[in-house]
Amino acid sequence: MHDSVSPTVKRKVAVLILGGGRGTRLYPLTLKRSKPAVPFAGRYRLVDIALSRCIHARLLNLHVLTQYNSASLHLHINRTYRFDAFNKGGIQVLAASQFYMQDDREQWFLGSADAVRKTLNHYSQGSEPYQHFLILAGDQIHELDVEAMLAHHLAEDADFTIAGTPIHGEQLSKYGVLKSSVTGRVSGFLEKPSQDHPELPDFRRSVGSKADKLQPEKPYWGSMGSYLIRAEILRDILREGSPDFGSGAVPYAAHNYKMMLYPHLGFFEDIGVFETFFDVHIRMAEGCLPINLYHSDTSLYTYRRELPPAMFSGSSSVEKSLVVEGSVMGDQLKLKSSLVGVRSIVQRDCSLYKTYLMGNDFYPCHDNIPQVVNTGSKNLEIGIGANCRIANAIIDKNCSIGSGCRIGLDPDKLKDGDYQGYSIHKGIVIIPKGSVLPSNTII
Amino acid sequence: MHDSVSPTVKRKVAVLILGGGRGTRLYPLTLKRSKPAVPFAGRYRLVDIALSRCIHARLLNLHVLTQYNSASLHLHINRTYRFDAFNKGGIQVLAASQFYMQDDREQWFLGSADAVRKTLNHYSQGSEPYQHFLILAGDQIHELDVEAMLAHHLAEDADFTIAGTPIHGEQLSKYGVLKSSVTGRVSGFLEKPSQDHPELPDFRRSVGSKADKLQPEKPYWGSMGSYLIRAEILRDILREGSPDFGSGAVPYAAHNYKMMLYPHLGFFEDIGVFETFFDVHIRMAEGCLPINLYHSDTSLYTYRRELPPAMFSGSSSVEKSLVVEGSVMGDQLKLKSSLVGVRSIVQRDCSLYKTYLMGNDFYPCHDNIPQVVNTGSKNLEIGIGANCRIANAIIDKNCSIGSGCRIGLDPDKLKDGDYQGYSIHKGIVIIPKGSVLPSNTII
Amino acid sequence: MHDSVSPTVKRKVAVLILGGGRGTRLYPLTLKRSKPAVPFAGRYRLVDIALSRCIHARLLNLHVLTQYNSASLHLHINRTYRFDAFNKGGIQVLAASQFYMQDDREQWFLGSADAVRKTLNHYSQGSEPYQHFLILAGDQIHELDVEAMLAHHLAEDADFTIAGTPIHGEQLSKYGVLKSSVTGRVSGFLEKPSQDHPELPDFRRSVGSKADKLQPEKPYWGSMGSYLIRAEILRDILREGSPDFGSGAVPYAAHNYKMMLYPHLGFFEDIGVFETFFDVHIRMAEGCLPINLYHSDTSLYTYRRELPPAMFSGSSSVEKSLVVEGSVMGDQLKLKSSLVGVRSIVQRDCSLYKTYLMGNDFYPCHDNIPQVVNTGSKNLEIGIGANCRIANAIIDKNCSIGSGCRIGLDPDKLKDGDYQGYSIHKGIVIIPKGSVLPSNTII
Amino acid sequence: MHDSVSPTVKRKVAVLILGGGRGTRLYPLTLKRSKPAVPFAGRYRLVDIALSRCIHARLLNLHVLTQYNSASLHLHINRTYRFDAFNKGGIQVLAASQFYMQDDREQWFLGSADAVRKTLNHYSQGSEPYQHFLILAGDQIHELDVEAMLAHHLAEDADFTIAGTPIHGEQLSKYGVLKSSVTGRVSGFLEKPSQDHPELPDFRRSVGSKADKLQPEKPYWGSMGSYLIRAEILRDILREGSPDFGSGAVPYAAHNYKMMLYPHLGFFEDIGVFETFFDVHIRMAEGCLPINLYHSDTSLYTYRRELPPAMFSGSSSVEKSLVVEGSVMGDQLKLKSSLVGVRSIVQRDCSLYKTYLMGNDFYPCHDNIPQVVNTGSKNLEIGIGANCRIANAIIDKNCSIGSGCRIGLDPDKLKDGDYQGYSIHKGIVIIPKGSVLPSNTII
Repeated sequence: MHDSVSPTVKRKVAVLILGGGRGTRLYPLTLKRSKPAVPFAGRYRLVDIALSRCIHARLLNLHVLTQYNSASLHLHINRTYRFDAFNKGGIQVLAASQFYMQDDREQWFLGSADAVRKTLNHYSQGSEPYQHFLILAGDQIHELDVEAMLAHHLAEDADFTIAGTPIHGEQLSKYGVLKSSVTGRVSGFLEKPSQDHPELPDFRRSVGSKADKLQPEKPYWGSMGSYLIRAEILRDILREGSPDFGSGAVPYAAHNYKMMLYPHLGFFEDIGVFETFFDVHIRMAEGCLPINLYHSDTSLYTYRRELPPAMFSGSSSVEKSLVVEGSVMGDQLKLKSSLVGVRSIVQRDCSLYKTYLMGNDFYPCHDNIPQVVNTGSKNLEIGIGANCRIANAIIDKNCSIGSGCRIGLDPDKLKDGDYQGYSIHKGIVIIPKGSVLPSNTII
Repeated sequence: MHDSVSPTVKRKVAVLILGGGRGTRLYPLTLKRSKPAVPFAGRYRLVDIALSRCIHARLLNLHVLTQYNSASLHLHINRTYRFDAFNKGGIQVLAASQFYMQDDREQWFLGSADAVRKTLNHYSQGSEPYQHFLILAGDQIHELDVEAMLAHHLAEDADFTIAGTPIHGEQLSKYGVLKSSVTGRVSGFLEKPSQDHPELPDFRRSVGSKADKLQPEKPYWGSMGSYLIRAEILRDILREGSPDFGSGAVPYAAHNYKMMLYPHLGFFEDIGVFETFFDVHIRMAEGCLPINLYHSDTSLYTYRRELPPAMFSGSSSVEKSLVVEGSVMGDQLKLKSSLVGVRSIVQRDCSLYKTYLMGNDFYPCHDNIPQVVNTGSKNLEIGIGANCRIANAIIDKNCSIGSGCRIGLDPDKLKDGDYQGYSIHKGIVIIPKGSVLPSNTII
Repeated sequence: MHDSVSPTVKRKVAVLILGGGRGTRLYPLTLKRSKPAVPFAGRYRLVDIALSRCIHARLLNLHVLTQYNSASLHLHINRTYRFDAFNKGGIQVLAASQFYMQDDREQWFLGSADAVRKTLNHYSQGSEPYQHFLILAGDQIHELDVEAMLAHHLAEDADFTIAGTPIHGEQLSKYGVLKSSVTGRVSGFLEKPSQDHPELPDFRRSVGSKADKLQPEKPYWGSMGSYLIRAEILRDILREGSPDFGSGAVPYAAHNYKMMLYPHLGFFEDIGVFETFFDVHIRMAEGCLPINLYHSDTSLYTYRRELPPAMFSGSSSVEKSLVVEGSVMGDQLKLKSSLVGVRSIVQRDCSLYKTYLMGNDFYPCHDNIPQVVNTGSKNLEIGIGANCRIANAIIDKNCSIGSGCRIGLDPDKLKDGDYQGYSIHKGIVIIPKGSVLPSNTII
Repeated sequence: MHDSVSPTVKRKVAVLILGGGRGTRLYPLTLKRSKPAVPFAGRYRLVDIALSRCIHARLLNLHVLTQYNSASLHLHINRTYRFDAFNKGGIQVLAASQFYMQDDREQWFLGSADAVRKTLNHYSQGSEPYQHFLILAGDQIHELDVEAMLAHHLAEDADFTIAGTPIHGEQLSKYGVLKSSVTGRVSGFLEKPSQDHPELPDFRRSVGSKADKLQPEKPYWGSMGSYLIRAEILRDILREGSPDFGSGAVPYAAHNYKMMLYPHLGFFEDIGVFETFFDVHIRMAEGCLPINLYHSDTSLYTYRRELPPAMFSGSSSVEKSLVVEGSVMGDQLKLKSSLVGVRSIVQRDCSLYKTYLMGNDFYPCHDNIPQVVNTGSKNLEIGIGANCRIANAIIDKNCSIGSGCRIGLDPDKLKDGDYQGYSIHKGIVIIPKGSVLPSNTII
């Protein structure tokens, strides 16, 4: 399957996964961890998505660029991505700074291009210099075929290949927009234009190419923030100086180098934004999978845990939900459109609706968790207590929700803001990592 | 926790896990695999139980003795139990023979003692000879505290320490029975005596020791087949010549050496027998766990798989069941007292009752398994088809059960025997590994 | 470099490395170990040669076929060849029998074809059956380009590709000889023919092809025992029934299938024969390397040891010799045309000439080995004592040679045979593994 | 051997290895790498010394604190120290900052105490908080028995245990000096006092204790910068605020807490200073080993390389030298009191005296390195050319020294300073990593 590019050429490709900004768009999930370490689908981390994709394509010179090294990110990567002694590959985390200091803005990566610029010297060592850089956003979810994109880049002898996804007119303000010819040559780039931008008519997808004919209801090519760049070109376009690729390096390259479009017509979503992150999780629970997880060629890698089967200790009703290993579910449970994460503990008589329960990093200390979960107990240090009703919520890792709580049941009353012990964003309740909620709390 | 014996002493203990006989008692699960490789709890192998127990106790000189090396056993062990370069430990599989040959009885291990005898030279290499041998049966399930047993062995300066479990009179015929004094000294041993054996009165548990006072309803100490033996003693008692420990070496040692009882009062079951194997699985599904799987100190290790959460793609009723990762469940499902193994596929409108579904080694090739499972499809190469009713059954790995099947619903009609495409043992239906059952089959 | 065949095709190739016969030709090195485990070049094992070659070519479905699993072979392979979780590859040892039993000839592999025949069912598991089998002899040394051979096999759409090396007339009796046309099509095969075999004239290398023009002084193509065979063809030709490929399967295939020659013009030696094994080691010490060990693309893999630099603790003269890590050399040493293996201990005033010292598996217990080696000590449990003169010898692992010994100095007196504590074969003295030689022994 | 402290207690000890300052004292070896990554003994890194010591003692919660993450340090640690899934241990690198920025002093660790203070929050995660911190300097070499020190710390119920080494009066200005009673209680601390400091007489080693009686010629206890500190005490003493332990936290703790001396009477050297670093290497080559490398219990761990034996391709004279694996030595070579590092290439007719050749990270691209090294060639991209004379020098990694060079032969002419292409420090010539020196250069 992964045969369109030879291993020798792949060995000369450096992959840079951009961990994203300070993570404010995913706040408060990023309060205590770096963005790439945010738990995805109840058992992965965000960074596993891009890393797994590259590993399946046997692109093994991997670098994760992040603002800071959370201990959990480092540990996760060191434990999960251990290449054997017979590969030349490896994985490195490059952080703008290890520790957060007041009033010291300069040490952070100021944007995607700035991150690459500041770390560029790290990619030039060794006797074999890299020939191409594959730059991927670490907070997106899609099945972009990076191998096919690389084959296309080589076949077209491109300086810069940019992945594009068809977008609607109303999405223009969130995307960089590409002007491409019938041959796929990109000659212009507008960063987040308004719908009445005078140049926009020239940016409509042409109808000549095969890719252009599909999804005609989406008249523009939006940049996915995924680039393949020839090493010597990268060095030049970074000199342009803008902090972000979209605001400087890409338009500069479009005008000065041979930039080609690589069309991606499948699922594409930026889950680095809180509401999309939540939405994608609920949709996954309901069976709409952006990645075919149930297939060995597209599975996601993550840290090896030694966990038992999910246990339904009593009688439950489960509808359109995902349940991760190691979970223990009490009697008379109702799960609907929910994702129950690793080692989750949900005591008897609870109902979860449109809820992403991230699970726990460890089990509460008890000799017989299945039994107490089934009968209900106030003594478990973490997990969801008996008789809770939860909807429209993200419960972060290692929380203790007391019995009888009511969370997110009335969407009309959910006003955005940070409250004592929880936050509400875009109508979704977030209980931060490690929170303790007293019994009978109503949110 | 594991501190009663020092690492240096532990390094001088060789662990021998006896894979058991030719596996006839677990037939037909052992038709295509060696006994230690039989799938346990839908995601482990039998051998993981004893190995994990020893590893938690940091006893790391591990040997698995088996009649033959099934490829799957070897692969499983090599992939799962990789010690790092900083340990002195290691794991070896020693097989009586690699390949089965007609009319050649001699090459097999004739019993537990014969297995140890034939392989004894394998344990003497290296500059540091072993001082003690811990011999464990590989087909039992219990939480025997091997570290405490070793500490006891050392504290008592015993030649031979034998683990005992309290048993009822009616269990006598299945056990070796120990005669122990108030101090725990064992001075006699009867292998599977009848209830009217003249010496039995002397074998009743004495009431002096603390352990003896517990579980008074079980008047005898049955041997668990778990031994700790001083190296030089082992060599001597094997010269006795009997094929099994119980039939010769143990009674010989009881009379000639200082043999001490190590009392084990917790759960104990021999799951190397088919009906117990099935029964323990159903009881686990119903919440009666012989091992505290939901605790990091007693978890079982197994092969690292990269699998997504279990998916309930429609509306299901789940009662007292265990569901392993990677499973995909269709709409309108009923699970009760069942264990659904790794990568199981169960299409819509099925019901499982008292069923151990072992799961699959791979996914059927399909772009969207969750969708077809939910809507029903005849095209999936493995898994349970739509609208099946299954009870009292073990479905081995990689089976394809056509839609509309009725299996094991009427226990009265289940007569033991091997039939075309399935077997019935003790009233339990077994569908062998990789079987294909046509639609609407009734068993 | 390794690009001529795609990873997908490589995944469908099973590699079978034939560990060879009972190892009598390497006796007594094979007295206590299986042939693939014989130490090569003082720090590797024989089996590392073929395995490393395949791994460099990314052929990762590896099987080692051996008569019996020596514990050391298994341990070596399990520790050395650990593929990561991101590869589909794996390595298995398949042994004819685990334990040697008197008067039971049938259980052994009777020859190369018999070994493959008896294990054939082991290669058919999994959802993706193998399409080609690469069969390599495990006791040869050469730089056969297995990737190029595979590319050739595919390009020619061959059923059976056989590697050939040019040989002299006087070598005929040791080789299978190929009859090939200008196109490389092989149409005949003679197993070890005499020089006056009537068909031989038809077997002379034709002069049409490019390969045929090289090394004209060697008029025949000898089979290297390296085959690439289409899966379905293999199954058929094994039915022919002969124990060895050369005596049956290959001539049968030459007549019934499309068999192509893959010419190999570089170094080729069978080191499964004692005198060649010795000879190749001395030649390596003298700088004639059959494999380019000093290059990262052709390096050999072996077990990771944690060893310090080789130490020359006094003043030494070293001429055309190889010195492995962890060795400690005493004062006033003379090394010439010798190979000093891992952790070797050679005390002061010794001289080694044309000697292959295999080294030690562990260090003698001493606080300051460098010091006592330099000053001389009778108390070291292993190693070469002070003031020894050794020539024309193989000293196997973990030997203790007392001080003042004289070994192999006078070739005329070395009569072949097994003696008390040593053997002489073809004029070479062998001290078996773990031997203790008293001081002042003269051989 | 490592039994004085139980594994459970060890699990609650966090080890912090202080990578040291900006590395100016080792300049220019630290020009392109962080201090812990400086090559030690031709095949290790400085950080391997402390890490190996802790791992042998089974202290596995390891943290390396460094000013910045050189890519090579990270790669080295990730590849070398991979604990298996059965351990709770792990290793983290914590860097003051990833990237060097002008005029931004604050982001660096200002000293040993500052480094611990700034990273303290990183050690508090998990459900089991650490109870003790073992703080070790990463640039020292000694065989401090950390396990015995921990046992001593626990037995004395100390708040703070400090390792001390006997020192001479003239060493006072380089050490923190301890005032200890007969019981080992430390009640005072002077940081680098002058020899006429008025309090010094009270600091002389008392003669009551067993340790105090040894090495009477060294009248003071110098601090080795190795501390064992109770977790809650550490937090308090760091509040004292000084950048270094010696300048503030230690004297504060000596006055306010129960501080105990742990006497270390063996070898001790700070090799974070250039001249000592060089001196220790030459002494090792001459056989004076600060660590017993030739013993499996005290060996150093390092990255697994796949390298062939060291080759002496011609006739050489080797005296009191260490030769690392993978090296290729030409004809007519003279090595004396020198250390030849990994993959070193030294062409014919060279002599090395008191030289530490660090070796190479890769081989020059050539089909037959042994041959050209033996005959001499101008075309090898790295290594020492033919006919060079080198003395009193450190040649860093990957240098190319042209033929006929004369380096460091006349100590009188070696004036300290940085010159074009080399430096001289304390009479030692340093050729920086990757330098190219023209033929016939004279230094």
